[in-house]
Amino acid sequence: MSSNRRFVLAAKPAGLPKESDFRIEEAPIPEIKDGEALFRTEYLSVDPYMRGRISGVKTYADPVLVGELMVGSAVGRVVRSRNPQFAEGDWAAGFWGWQEYAVSDGRGLNKLDPKLAPPSASLGILGMPGMTAYFGFLDLCKPKAGETVLVSGAAGAVGSAVGQIAKIQGCRVIGIAGTDDKIRYITTELGFDGGFNYKTSQNYSRSLRELCPDGIDCYFDNVGGAITDAAFFQINNFGRVAVCGQIAHYNAEAPEPGPRLLSQILIRQLRVEGFIVTRFANRFAEGFRQMAQWLSEGKLKYSEEIVEGFENTPKAFIAMLQGANTGKMLVKCV
Amino acid sequence: MSSNRRFVLAAKPAGLPKESDFRIEEAPIPEIKDGEALFRTEYLSVDPYMRGRISGVKTYADPVLVGELMVGSAVGRVVRSRNPQFAEGDWAAGFWGWQEYAVSDGRGLNKLDPKLAPPSASLGILGMPGMTAYFGFLDLCKPKAGETVLVSGAAGAVGSAVGQIAKIQGCRVIGIAGTDDKIRYITTELGFDGGFNYKTSQNYSRSLRELCPDGIDCYFDNVGGAITDAAFFQINNFGRVAVCGQIAHYNAEAPEPGPRLLSQILIRQLRVEGFIVTRFANRFAEGFRQMAQWLSEGKLKYSEEIVEGFENTPKAFIAMLQGANTGKMLVKCV
Repeated sequence: MSSNRRFVLAAKPAGLPKESDFRIEEAPIPEIKDGEALFRTEYLSVDPYMRGRISGVKTYADPVLVGELMVGSAVGRVVRSRNPQFAEGDWAAGFWGWQEYAVSDGRGLNKLDPKLAPPSASLGILGMPGMTAYFGFLDLCKPKAGETVLVSGAAGAVGSAVGQIAKIQGCRVIGIAGTDDKIRYITTELGFDGGFNYKTSQNYSRSLRELCPDGIDCYFDNVGGAITDAAFFQINNFGRVAVCGQIAHYNAEAPEPGPRLLSQILIRQLRVEGFIVTRFANRFAEGFRQMAQWLSEGKLKYSEEIVEGFENTPKAFIAMLQGANTGKMLVKCV
Repeated sequence: MSSNRRFVLAAKPAGLPKESDFRIEEAPIPEIKDGEALFRTEYLSVDPYMRGRISGVKTYADPVLVGELMVGSAVGRVVRSRNPQFAEGDWAAGFWGWQEYAVSDGRGLNKLDPKLAPPSASLGILGMPGMTAYFGFLDLCKPKAGETVLVSGAAGAVGSAVGQIAKIQGCRVIGIAGTDDKIRYITTELGFDGGFNYKTSQNYSRSLRELCPDGIDCYFDNVGGAITDAAFFQINNFGRVAVCGQIAHYNAEAPEPGPRLLSQILIRQLRVEGFIVTRFANRFAEGFRQMAQWLSEGKLKYSEEIVEGFENTPKAFIAMLQGANTGKMLVKCV
């Protein structure tokens, strides 16, 4: 423990980010003042939304500029404290970015009880991805028992949670993912009723018709692109679409044209809504309670894809953007 | 009064319908049985939705097939009656299609009081287009005072009502239409705060930025196509889009590609909803009451574009699809 390594953005990526778009800088481990604690990062989260944050464009948040610390959620343990709420060894989750150490006065941190759930779960099923699944699916799709729910990006941190929540609601759930192993995982481990590998499907429309013979009532979209185009043509009257992610487009330098979908939205009277999980921030306690309960009852499962070593964070991020992970992609730093 | 002329579909139109896609057939004027009344058509309505009904595709309703009577709303007067609820000379509106006479037992008809409003208004501001504007805008866009509302197809029967309802709600209202006269009409006669002629605009995005400097909060879309593409990029966070019509595409033989809009829906957390007015059927009484009250208070105005002669109904329909009308397009048959 001699210095604090931090990843800063080295270049605004063109297309799929490269490792050289990030650069390690070393800085002294920060001193703490009264009321502060020093955290050592145990886990870093890499998530699809980060691609948008390094595109140089202000969206719902300011972009990370070249030379700035890369943003992101992290879980760490207290190594030194001058804050009575944090003792040495305590666990907490916060949004302190891609660095090995961080100082905090406790604001914006969630203290974690490792006896309740593994601390890394607070970056996945009990954290932002879990809240995204819980609120995005239940609030926007308003599923009813017996309805057919389609989830794209179904083996990812969010999609795998959405599908299981849909099963808990009594829905029939079909998932789309990018490897046969992922399809096996969601159908045999997570209880999805079916799914298909979009990389080997000869025809998305046909795959959807076979798996959703009664059409689609709710579509939870993590990916966009041609998969979503095909799905829209098979959504039932009064269907609901939650637009959570559009990872197919995140690396596009210019928007790619596609079929216009508003005629489908009109004719079938669909409701299509985009969301960022932070809009539900004042209800996270409710989401956390419910998700933790389902976890403890064995109704929810999750898996993690763990990359070892802080220095491999960009590699993990890029692999996640390419769909390498089943479940939540994490970097274990310690 | 010797025969009943009726327009049947002669051919499934390719692209913009032609007059020859319709054919007049003559039939005897129907006899009436006990409980029925015979109506002579005074006004026929021609509306954008009819293009979808003759495309041979089942959407939210069965298509009109070649050889079948063309569908549509009509207003007529009783010429003979064996129904105690209808006396000779009484006015009623119904959905009896493009024909000069119709028999009804009264089911599905609205009896009209010509002292309350001109009977033709029941095909426009107090009929289906008015209900479309009232429920589609208020229920789906949920406008708040001070917000900016954009309306496409702004000089049409629906759009002109939406803009005025938005003004009543205290919104700032911008309209898009296809002639300078229409823009003059909506801004000087109907109280819209601004508008532009999409046929002479050099750049939709720039026109929108100039007229909506604070962005767009509600977008009531009657047209689709490139206008809507441009609008989507200027909708504010949590904006609402009511998809009422997509007339730009109605004559397209194959869906035309366009920019994918789901990324905009995601990033700005938009809610986009399509609707067919019939979903609000159980609330039409409420809509009618409110619209009639606003009319009587002078808060709502409407105009009609009247084509004379039953035989000119296809011509009126085609002209309406090309945007020839300001306000409601009607055919006067008597």
